[in-house]
Amino acid sequence: MADERELIERVARAIPSIQRGKEQKQGIALGIGDDAAVIRSARKRDWVVTVDAFVEDVHFLRDKHPADAVGYKALARATSDLAAMGARPDFFLLSLALPSDCTRTWLNLFAKGMGRAARKLGLVLVGGDTTRSASISISVTVIGHAQRFGTKAPVVSRSGARAGALLYVSGPLGRAQLGLELVLQDYANNRKLQKLLAPHLYPAIRLQLGEWLASRGIASAMIDISDGLSTDLARLCSASRVGARIYAERIPVVQIPSPVAGLLGRRAADPLSMALHGGDDYELLFAVPKKLERKLAGAPDFQNLKCVGEIEPTMGVRLIEPDGQVRHLLAKGWDSFRRA
Amino acid sequence: MADERELIERVARAIPSIQRGKEQKQGIALGIGDDAAVIRSARKRDWVVTVDAFVEDVHFLRDKHPADAVGYKALARATSDLAAMGARPDFFLLSLALPSDCTRTWLNLFAKGMGRAARKLGLVLVGGDTTRSASISISVTVIGHAQRFGTKAPVVSRSGARAGALLYVSGPLGRAQLGLELVLQDYANNRKLQKLLAPHLYPAIRLQLGEWLASRGIASAMIDISDGLSTDLARLCSASRVGARIYAERIPVVQIPSPVAGLLGRRAADPLSMALHGGDDYELLFAVPKKLERKLAGAPDFQNLKCVGEIEPTMGVRLIEPDGQVRHLLAKGWDSFRRA
Repeated sequence: MADERELIERVARAIPSIQRGKEQKQGIALGIGDDAAVIRSARKRDWVVTVDAFVEDVHFLRDKHPADAVGYKALARATSDLAAMGARPDFFLLSLALPSDCTRTWLNLFAKGMGRAARKLGLVLVGGDTTRSASISISVTVIGHAQRFGTKAPVVSRSGARAGALLYVSGPLGRAQLGLELVLQDYANNRKLQKLLAPHLYPAIRLQLGEWLASRGIASAMIDISDGLSTDLARLCSASRVGARIYAERIPVVQIPSPVAGLLGRRAADPLSMALHGGDDYELLFAVPKKLERKLAGAPDFQNLKCVGEIEPTMGVRLIEPDGQVRHLLAKGWDSFRRA
Repeated sequence: MADERELIERVARAIPSIQRGKEQKQGIALGIGDDAAVIRSARKRDWVVTVDAFVEDVHFLRDKHPADAVGYKALARATSDLAAMGARPDFFLLSLALPSDCTRTWLNLFAKGMGRAARKLGLVLVGGDTTRSASISISVTVIGHAQRFGTKAPVVSRSGARAGALLYVSGPLGRAQLGLELVLQDYANNRKLQKLLAPHLYPAIRLQLGEWLASRGIASAMIDISDGLSTDLARLCSASRVGARIYAERIPVVQIPSPVAGLLGRRAADPLSMALHGGDDYELLFAVPKKLERKLAGAPDFQNLKCVGEIEPTMGVRLIEPDGQVRHLLAKGWDSFRRA
């Protein structure tokens, strides 16, 4: 039987990490293998910190989701919170509770996927904790930074949206929901469907765009769409004490090829509904004051940005249907407790 | 049914915390309620970061451990890692996965206990994540600091012990194991036994001693005894590439009153064995170079410090029996995977 130490060493080998005694990366004074990690403070740098739980049977299914995708996504989704602040990721800690029968093959694949995400996102593992448990429960703490100008670090909160600002999303919505439906139908390993599966299994995180928007002061409020546009827009509006209107026709939806719709049968949802309420897309939703809109032309992946509506003074979110009808949009995105 | 937002607000009310828009505590630029927390860097300050998992049926039993003790201990044990570095705790993040039927009374008591620990330990909640799950799984990230002198922050790692140094423990060992045995026998709520139960349910964390030893450069290596003296001494020796000898007669053991031994019956273990291999004591184990020993007299709680042995050049840990016999001490403390 593996012991905890052996598990930690195996994970740390598969993931870019800083071992005790090998602290070369700037900013780390003490890495994995001691009671805690030590991070050097740096001039004019604020630390941005977030934690994210990723739990079996709630966020993923052990028999349907590939272990490497679980590792990749657990780290990617936590890092998306930093993208939404405009911060740059540096370090992470992994808290991993897993059943004994997951400590070999499953853990190796998990660590491989997480290692791939860490390299892609520029993250280094500096510490963690491993324990046995009845089901898999992952918690990832990500630490990043924002460079301070004067006394203020250019992070973008959820609360700065003002009436009149334009609402943008960074890409098509509902793609992760489509991928999830395919996984639930046991197509996770179907090679022909990888392109449609990827947004759900290995989500892209909009780090460059987030940092670009923050450092230039172009976005006045920002959030990542992790639980669905309807829910995350409501959160942004509530934090900013404003409302919003969005136009159904402007929302970039996923295109479902008809053979795929056939595979899904009755599970194939309406693309607009998937875009409004589907979770896990990790696109950014941000407000841009009108006078700054023209500056967006220089944004990374500018061609994917889409203006979906605008901020209004009246609380609540309104959806404008193609025929001009206005309907109140309820937050019907993902909430693990409400679905329970 | 409660939704995630309501849960977070309820927890944040019970625990000293920094809400978005109310960031008064020095060092915090953005608190709970956004995508991530923002911590101001400070001159000459290194951040010390640790994460700790606390899982139902592995670390505690829902039907035997009071919920407020689960909350208290989850935070206390994570903070003990900072004590072992000599760092001072500042902020924490809570990742909480729990079943729907734990979201009312259980969660309220849990938050109350965690709030009490936070006040005691000087910690403020700055962020977290909550999700539903089949069983309770808690992960706590604690962020503290060490003040830098010159280019070096006075943290104490596990790896600085050299042959000839004296080995000290900060207090009696095996007390948490005794408390655990009482809890397993359903005495958790017995008012007469609270003093014996407390070390297991509400462990004291040696923050002042740890910081005192670190800031004065008196300890050359340090670890908290979370998994038993035999296991944690082996870790310290392995990290320092040294060995150690400890004397059975010098190890401060727990005194079991005979009526209590009677209650436990066959579960009453030998006090030395409980001290060597029992987990969860959170006393500090540290090495002190001989020439610095006299300085210890000024330490907080000096009267509880006990020299149990010394560091030797030969790898391995040796226990000297009262009759002078030397036996090799195996690391038989707590390992959740080995017990699986």
